[in-house]
Amino acid sequence: LKIELAEHYGFCYGVKRAIEIAQQHPNSATFGPIIHNIDEINRLDKEYNVGLVDSVDEALKYDTLIIRTHGITKDNLKKLKKEGKKVINATCPYVTKPQQIVADMSQKGYTIVIFGDKNHPEIKGVASYSEDQDRTYTILTPEELIGKALGTKVAIVAQTTRKPEDFKKIVSFLTTRVVELRVFNTICNATFENQDATASLAKKSDVMIVIGGKNSSNTKQLYLIAKSNCKDSYHIENEDELESKWFKNKEFCGISAGASTPDWIIQKVVKKIEELAK
Amino acid sequence: LKIELAEHYGFCYGVKRAIEIAQQHPNSATFGPIIHNIDEINRLDKEYNVGLVDSVDEALKYDTLIIRTHGITKDNLKKLKKEGKKVINATCPYVTKPQQIVADMSQKGYTIVIFGDKNHPEIKGVASYSEDQDRTYTILTPEELIGKALGTKVAIVAQTTRKPEDFKKIVSFLTTRVVELRVFNTICNATFENQDATASLAKKSDVMIVIGGKNSSNTKQLYLIAKSNCKDSYHIENEDELESKWFKNKEFCGISAGASTPDWIIQKVVKKIEELAK
Repeated sequence: LKIELAEHYGFCYGVKRAIEIAQQHPNSATFGPIIHNIDEINRLDKEYNVGLVDSVDEALKYDTLIIRTHGITKDNLKKLKKEGKKVINATCPYVTKPQQIVADMSQKGYTIVIFGDKNHPEIKGVASYSEDQDRTYTILTPEELIGKALGTKVAIVAQTTRKPEDFKKIVSFLTTRVVELRVFNTICNATFENQDATASLAKKSDVMIVIGGKNSSNTKQLYLIAKSNCKDSYHIENEDELESKWFKNKEFCGISAGASTPDWIIQKVVKKIEELAK
Repeated sequence: LKIELAEHYGFCYGVKRAIEIAQQHPNSATFGPIIHNIDEINRLDKEYNVGLVDSVDEALKYDTLIIRTHGITKDNLKKLKKEGKKVINATCPYVTKPQQIVADMSQKGYTIVIFGDKNHPEIKGVASYSEDQDRTYTILTPEELIGKALGTKVAIVAQTTRKPEDFKKIVSFLTTRVVELRVFNTICNATFENQDATASLAKKSDVMIVIGGKNSSNTKQLYLIAKSNCKDSYHIENEDELESKWFKNKEFCGISAGASTPDWIIQKVVKKIEELAK
């Protein structure tokens, strides 16, 4: 049985980078979960004594705080620094970018439109950088802008994980409603790269394994893409779920993984498949 | 018979302004036709001795040159000034705006995209203001941008008379292809205001007269809009075409006019209708 990993899978650049930073700073804590994967968070705790806090109050117990991939609000960052904490910034550069844009554009008098989920930590952080909160709108659909005071100059950024097609709808809406619109395409390609790589790998596979949380929406999406290109596709969380019959008379096994699946879980799956296929 | 003019009709703001400027400067010449209406050009010539030239060479015969509504190229403007000519700028402010944007944005290193007809005088003028002609693309469809070196920063402007829907298509195309897109909506509403006003007037009219050149595309468009809201709609060029039977047993006559139709032609039509309806 030939086993091949998708060209892009699992952790994105920003998450890989944040975990490396965490490993370089043992005996610290991350501000908010560094990744949506409890196994990986436990591993960092066990192997590097990197804890997890969810508020400034909890953070005060630590000397060194790691800002997680999604970033935090300007206000919380200020508080941590004011308390004399050592702050290690592991915010994904693709998230730092919209933070800077929002700060700069709001200072220059542009109304700010953020295409994203106002309850998502990334977006809470990005929005917090606006110097004019009354002229900052966080929305998911163009309709939410109807009746809002937009002024003549608007700058728009997007949550990194949003769909470009939905972003375009908001841009279209604004195009004819303001005199100047500054569009900053801050959508990250990582999700789509994983999807595209899964599709092309599934096409040449006769069995396809997709690894990731059963509740992970991006993993479910990868599984659907795999399934539509290879009928014998399976969605598993770890190697224990693998069944030897899946690989009977198969020649080519493709493997992909959701964005929150650490490499060490993927390696265990590969190893187990090799054993089962013997 | 009650006669009512559409809320918006005929000359747009920029043309009205340019004609007033021409009238304030007798014994001059306009650089290019000030309007697409030969009757009006002849009237300016006869009443104010305002001639018409089509090139810098011809312009040299005059002391005072009036830059027409569409504007001219930066190069021609420079030549006229260098020859010591008195230059009166009647460029529509809605055209001056994209000229300034193109100059400013190209200087700041943005690739320039102009949505418009590269053979139209307005667009030739606007494009001439770019400081980097190799990074200036004048296009009518998004497809024309495929394979072009866009760079990371693009600024886009539109010809004043283009349709917003078509502009949005190009904006959508660029949104996901560059890091920053500056959208300047330089489309003028005048055309759409005339259309909307014609539609709402036609709805309450039992006879509708649309005045304008038989070859004028914007007048033909107005006529179609009138016709679809009032079955007894007529497209005429001047009062000689009016027929008394059109107004028999009618109570409400709506009048609209294309963008190149001068007021004095419209007034003659109104007067003639009043006579016919007696």
